[in-house]
Amino acid sequence: MYEGVVQDLIDELGQLPGIGPKGAQRIAFHLLTADESDVQRLITALTEVKAKVKFCTVCGNVAQDTLCRICADPRRDPNALCVVEEPKDVVAIERTREFTGRYHVLGGAISPIDGIGPEQLRIAELMARLGSEDITEVILATDPNIEGEATAAYLARQLRPFGLRVTRLASGLPVGGDLEYADEVTLGRAFEGRRLIDA
Amino acid sequence: MYEGVVQDLIDELGQLPGIGPKGAQRIAFHLLTADESDVQRLITALTEVKAKVKFCTVCGNVAQDTLCRICADPRRDPNALCVVEEPKDVVAIERTREFTGRYHVLGGAISPIDGIGPEQLRIAELMARLGSEDITEVILATDPNIEGEATAAYLARQLRPFGLRVTRLASGLPVGGDLEYADEVTLGRAFEGRRLIDA
Repeated sequence: MYEGVVQDLIDELGQLPGIGPKGAQRIAFHLLTADESDVQRLITALTEVKAKVKFCTVCGNVAQDTLCRICADPRRDPNALCVVEEPKDVVAIERTREFTGRYHVLGGAISPIDGIGPEQLRIAELMARLGSEDITEVILATDPNIEGEATAAYLARQLRPFGLRVTRLASGLPVGGDLEYADEVTLGRAFEGRRLIDA
Repeated sequence: MYEGVVQDLIDELGQLPGIGPKGAQRIAFHLLTADESDVQRLITALTEVKAKVKFCTVCGNVAQDTLCRICADPRRDPNALCVVEEPKDVVAIERTREFTGRYHVLGGAISPIDGIGPEQLRIAELMARLGSEDITEVILATDPNIEGEATAAYLARQLRPFGLRVTRLASGLPVGGDLEYADEVTLGRAFEGRRLIDA
């Protein structure tokens, strides 16, 4: 129905996460009438990302060199290690400015239905780091969903012999949210994790 | 905060319609870990669209040649002309299979706030077609919003001297929708345009 190359672009855009068929069509027609230079900047950004972005040989985060910006920074606390699923989780935690340690990116979570077991994740690399680096606390910051919880439980068992402080991020009500709109699991966790108020 | 080239890609993606900062970040990290070949196909589709897609010299629709697929098709009814704002509107109408005539793409709608007057649209080209082609009905299929209505009203005035049948698409309740969720303007239009039932 569409001219061939336009349909190709719509198909490719529709493969991206969070873009449905309508959204892909809207973006394609926007690009059709957009300035040549705008489209060229997008093409350049895509090309550069695949050409220049590597993954940190230590932590697995995105990097432009063999080490990522965080692993290369001597001011980061070498005793605390935060284990996350994906590079985007590093970005989210960095944004809080709460954590001054280093990261380890697993590359996903254990998910038997998707054929992802511990061997498919960067767990052997994690164990190697615990043996060689001066780590005293491991924070398991995998996602608060079934796969993330399963991965955290698996890692907690694997880490037991190291005698480290192993922690998990708190679950509870989102700040700024309404109690009545919280789902029952979250509300249950918030009760379970309730804390004394210093008054 | 992000590595430079990743941030560049997020910025470029964030310029696209319907993609917010979170969505742009999600897509960028998806592309980072995606297969090289998937990203290359997207880059090719973008390059091809800008290189190959032209605009039909008759109707202004997207085309791979000097004429679009519809203007080049001798089976299309030469008497009916449907005036739309954008090429994507042609796609939407073609999908209904209700219309067998030809199109004229204005390239937008009259919008004084955005500095778009009749001169910025392909209205002179429309008048030229009415003079040279064998058109008997003009369907004004601009969007049912303020700018689209203003454009239709303007065109209706301009078309009066030609003595053609000039029509506008019906407004009313969307099929499959719930009456109680219809906004008052749409519901008002649905009343205004109510039709006798042949029973």
